[in-house]
Amino acid sequence: MTDDLVDFALLSHNGIPARELKTGEIIFREGDPATEMYLIEKGSIEIRLGNRLLGTLGPDSIFGEMALIDSSARSATAVAATDATIIPVSEYQFLFLVSNAPRFALKVMRVLVERLRSANKLI
Amino acid sequence: MTDDLVDFALLSHNGIPARELKTGEIIFREGDPATEMYLIEKGSIEIRLGNRLLGTLGPDSIFGEMALIDSSARSATAVAATDATIIPVSEYQFLFLVSNAPRFALKVMRVLVERLRSANKLI
Repeated sequence: MTDDLVDFALLSHNGIPARELKTGEIIFREGDPATEMYLIEKGSIEIRLGNRLLGTLGPDSIFGEMALIDSSARSATAVAATDATIIPVSEYQFLFLVSNAPRFALKVMRVLVERLRSANKLI
Repeated sequence: MTDDLVDFALLSHNGIPARELKTGEIIFREGDPATEMYLIEKGSIEIRLGNRLLGTLGPDSIFGEMALIDSSARSATAVAATDATIIPVSEYQFLFLVSNAPRFALKVMRVLVERLRSANKLI
């Protein structure tokens, strides 16, 4: 997927360090203030709301983008379902990518539309 | 709202003609192929799925963006709830705006996040 390569190249160029997680480690909790989103490099991440599992995401997925886009608090909790490696993308980097890598913006939009379609099916 | 002005300036510059609608006029139906999204200039538009009203949108709102982003068919029907004026944005223009007006991309993302949060509340 070219999209991922483009984003990755840009991210690598910015020298953002990856973050290593152990199974069960919490990345953020519902209600936390949001300062970054994440790209999953390895492993899987669960998105939970109370006891409800909203989704399990694998490599090349993004998460935590919603709070960054609308400057709100985290609406769910993110937990490492396995040992995992994630790459944090700060709000500044996010805006930089949206401004300079339209494919990144389109990728984020596609992820949002996919999640919106899934949510609409469950209503 | 600066975002709208920026987009509008760009849209006007491209000389896209507005489309006048009468109350009850259908803009697209569920299942239709999608070639454009819309910006509401005047009036209000209802988004319907079967007999269910998914939402009513007013001036400065966008609609029809989902099918354009993930190249799928229309997932709902859009009807003019009042006499209305809408500005069609073709897929090409959409990609042009995303590439050249990061604020437009951010606005689309904010709309998607808002709709996703509303949908998640209803599940």
